[in-house]
Amino acid sequence: MEQRVRVLIDCEDAKGLVYKISKIFYERDLNIDSNREFVDKEQHKFFMRTVVSGQLDVSELENALREIAPENARLKVIVPQRKKIVILATKESHALGDILIRHEAGELNASIEAVIANHDTLKPLVRRFDIPFFHVPTEGLSREEHEENVAKLIDKNQFDYIVLAKYMRILTSSFVSRYPQQIINIHHSFLPAFIGANPYKQAFERGVKIIGATAHFVTDDLDEGPIIAQDVIPVNHRLEWRDMQKAGRDVEKIVLSRALNFVLHDRVFVHGNKTIVF
Amino acid sequence: MEQRVRVLIDCEDAKGLVYKISKIFYERDLNIDSNREFVDKEQHKFFMRTVVSGQLDVSELENALREIAPENARLKVIVPQRKKIVILATKESHALGDILIRHEAGELNASIEAVIANHDTLKPLVRRFDIPFFHVPTEGLSREEHEENVAKLIDKNQFDYIVLAKYMRILTSSFVSRYPQQIINIHHSFLPAFIGANPYKQAFERGVKIIGATAHFVTDDLDEGPIIAQDVIPVNHRLEWRDMQKAGRDVEKIVLSRALNFVLHDRVFVHGNKTIVF
Amino acid sequence: MEQRVRVLIDCEDAKGLVYKISKIFYERDLNIDSNREFVDKEQHKFFMRTVVSGQLDVSELENALREIAPENARLKVIVPQRKKIVILATKESHALGDILIRHEAGELNASIEAVIANHDTLKPLVRRFDIPFFHVPTEGLSREEHEENVAKLIDKNQFDYIVLAKYMRILTSSFVSRYPQQIINIHHSFLPAFIGANPYKQAFERGVKIIGATAHFVTDDLDEGPIIAQDVIPVNHRLEWRDMQKAGRDVEKIVLSRALNFVLHDRVFVHGNKTIVF
Amino acid sequence: MEQRVRVLIDCEDAKGLVYKISKIFYERDLNIDSNREFVDKEQHKFFMRTVVSGQLDVSELENALREIAPENARLKVIVPQRKKIVILATKESHALGDILIRHEAGELNASIEAVIANHDTLKPLVRRFDIPFFHVPTEGLSREEHEENVAKLIDKNQFDYIVLAKYMRILTSSFVSRYPQQIINIHHSFLPAFIGANPYKQAFERGVKIIGATAHFVTDDLDEGPIIAQDVIPVNHRLEWRDMQKAGRDVEKIVLSRALNFVLHDRVFVHGNKTIVF
Repeated sequence: MEQRVRVLIDCEDAKGLVYKISKIFYERDLNIDSNREFVDKEQHKFFMRTVVSGQLDVSELENALREIAPENARLKVIVPQRKKIVILATKESHALGDILIRHEAGELNASIEAVIANHDTLKPLVRRFDIPFFHVPTEGLSREEHEENVAKLIDKNQFDYIVLAKYMRILTSSFVSRYPQQIINIHHSFLPAFIGANPYKQAFERGVKIIGATAHFVTDDLDEGPIIAQDVIPVNHRLEWRDMQKAGRDVEKIVLSRALNFVLHDRVFVHGNKTIVF
Repeated sequence: MEQRVRVLIDCEDAKGLVYKISKIFYERDLNIDSNREFVDKEQHKFFMRTVVSGQLDVSELENALREIAPENARLKVIVPQRKKIVILATKESHALGDILIRHEAGELNASIEAVIANHDTLKPLVRRFDIPFFHVPTEGLSREEHEENVAKLIDKNQFDYIVLAKYMRILTSSFVSRYPQQIINIHHSFLPAFIGANPYKQAFERGVKIIGATAHFVTDDLDEGPIIAQDVIPVNHRLEWRDMQKAGRDVEKIVLSRALNFVLHDRVFVHGNKTIVF
Repeated sequence: MEQRVRVLIDCEDAKGLVYKISKIFYERDLNIDSNREFVDKEQHKFFMRTVVSGQLDVSELENALREIAPENARLKVIVPQRKKIVILATKESHALGDILIRHEAGELNASIEAVIANHDTLKPLVRRFDIPFFHVPTEGLSREEHEENVAKLIDKNQFDYIVLAKYMRILTSSFVSRYPQQIINIHHSFLPAFIGANPYKQAFERGVKIIGATAHFVTDDLDEGPIIAQDVIPVNHRLEWRDMQKAGRDVEKIVLSRALNFVLHDRVFVHGNKTIVF
Repeated sequence: MEQRVRVLIDCEDAKGLVYKISKIFYERDLNIDSNREFVDKEQHKFFMRTVVSGQLDVSELENALREIAPENARLKVIVPQRKKIVILATKESHALGDILIRHEAGELNASIEAVIANHDTLKPLVRRFDIPFFHVPTEGLSREEHEENVAKLIDKNQFDYIVLAKYMRILTSSFVSRYPQQIINIHHSFLPAFIGANPYKQAFERGVKIIGATAHFVTDDLDEGPIIAQDVIPVNHRLEWRDMQKAGRDVEKIVLSRALNFVLHDRVFVHGNKTIVF
């Protein structure tokens, strides 16, 4: 079938990998539409993302690649299609709103299956877009019980990624390990500066001249997951911490959307606690 | 005498300060060439930097201002002139070199009295500019003894500021307290991220997408002094830590020179562990 | 009445202005909450924006200020309140969407009276927010006739500013002169580079390494009005012009919202074809 | 001989290029140390820069590659070595100084063969570094005569590139065509904004909020050559044009050095009036 696929390979580095892989494409008369590679020399790891098009059979191609790939290679042949996401939020609307507007314009490259929040503040906004909104209150519940309720709701959906669009609760290890490399968070500081609560207040008190935001995969270690995207803006002595918070929102939403764009186009490899973004 | 002076006031906030101060300028028929104020409302502090010109007597003006200023006000009337600096360095030439070139071009607004280093690597470079270079070796000396040698050399000069242009040794409290608000350092990270040794290695290992540099006054707390200027550049997975280090040098030298420019024009107020930069 | 007002003065520079103005505040026992001044020395113009609070009568204060202000001074005492805006758009939703989300969150500091568009593409989006949407088609109409229809609709509203949120039609002099210093546009390039149609295509063809966006007041001269805000992002050879266009949208919406924020807080003075932004 | 070389290929795009090229590396048992490709789909052009190491014979490798490369391919196998540059300057020292400091530190990856200037202002600075300085005065000479004198001096040197480090004279077509793709200029604006004389004055008069610098290859069309690198800094109403000029110098020198770094590592392909920078 005439089609275009994304080939992702992530394996031990070895001589001849590019040759062997491109040979497979060549023998099938495929076009290479774009190609990015990277070798981490310290760790002897090879990463490649190639977009090929032509008459191809996905499983046949994947099998051929698997035969020449080193053992334990992570290998994917992906037919591009809109991925599915579930969003977790709390009260702030800027990051969620940015995603909703892109979604509405058909520019998100994903469909939003549900928005789940621990407050009902954002319900009217989400409902305006005819997207399912679920309020999961925390009152009277342990962290584990609340998360269990959230997880049940999440699991009712088919989804590729869970997006924390300013979800202001810390997730337990148990929750995080349920969705490995599937949870993307926007942290409201230039990590690793100002880990933890109220980073704008911390930034204000430290008197920094620049503030930022960090989109990262969520892992067990709070604010320590692999960073996907970061950006910053200048600030000065005239901004109190609430002004910084307000100014920071623009960076947060842009950085989260930029990270989502990378992830939804299969442009991100996770490697230890780092990412390779092609 | 017809002249132009910088008036700096830093005091408890009080009603009528602008009025009372501008009245003094008005009564003396002075021009206000530029004027910046800031009120820290949380701490009830008032900061003002005004450049006035006209027929004026510096001590008369200062006395008049002192009379209307709140008790404990820090008040300065400064006749602009080239300040004097002593530079401490180690082996890297980029930050020092940037200052030397500006100095040579008459654009530094300061004269370099001496360069003192714990290695002799930079001696040829400094000598090219006919500036006194002193090598103070560390071998066989305790930190305190070495610092004592450095301090003796510093104190032989008249100077306004000590500039650490990539001086790679940690200073003792005792040394720092000898030169309060006079020591300016360039730290090779976006503080408070990556405090301590080898921040580029730390940045590489954390997988950040942005690296930076921070110019700050040196206080007792390592890397915790008031920040004067910061800037950043984007990086990606292709940079190993030595590449980051190399790329970071441009930011370091520009940020240090920018901070120096602020300080040498009396545009920086220190307030707790923060700065107001006008 | 106990209240807080913004005092804006824009006049010929003269000795003693700060003194005379602050005297008026002092005599009325007003607090100066913030104060910014600027003197354009080349043009001998004085600009000041002061926020004062206390027991005050707006017209009394304005009269007092007018008495001491130079002739032809532009002087305003403004009681802060949500301003009203009318938005003109075409088909793209990113800039409009960003404003709608801020509006919904109560963070816009303005109320959107109406959205008027020359296409009906954005009608569903605007309707989701219960904001009046008017489609004014261009078919069969001269530029002047179409503008007349738009202007009639605009004039049915009370409004302070007209915001062109990617309104892709060139306005006639006659339309522009009807709303002096009231029309704010977002141009999709770093002006003055790439004036005119399809700036991203121009940028792509020129091979620039940075693209940007410019928010400005609209004047008779196309793309020549006073600039309020600008920002940029890096690009490279891998981006085709449609990729640049896509990447540029984030800059466009952020720059427009930043400019709106300045204007809606009365922080912008227009001075010839430039702005002073406090 | 065990060595590392840079392979640069620039040709019509064709199916199987990556395969055929990587096959040649594979058959010779070479390591691919880094690899970047780009296909300009609109123009059907293929660009590749690969660093390979191992037992290799440069001409044998080049011949093998030429056999499989499309007709008219530009193909180079480069043994990395310090390139040679000649610098042209006028009076300003910041861009030249930055290069001299890097040169002195062994970080320039090039040797400076000579500095040629139309004024003798920079002679003392250049002499400090024991680098040949030649003053070629313009008095009493036509543009062509002056250029002839400059060219004669240039041609006495072996050199790879001519660097215009703020050389403030317009070059004739005849001069430019003598050194195709060998002349690198730093223009003191974000091109294509503010082409021509005194861009900072133009920027000031236009009231922009950002200024920049552009490093580009020099072609016949003034300020229209392929752009290698650009960067910007924010400015505001408080900067007069001379302040902008001063602030801009940091951007100029950093952008020029960044562009030089790309060029000296053979990372730049010129393609029409654009560059591909790997």
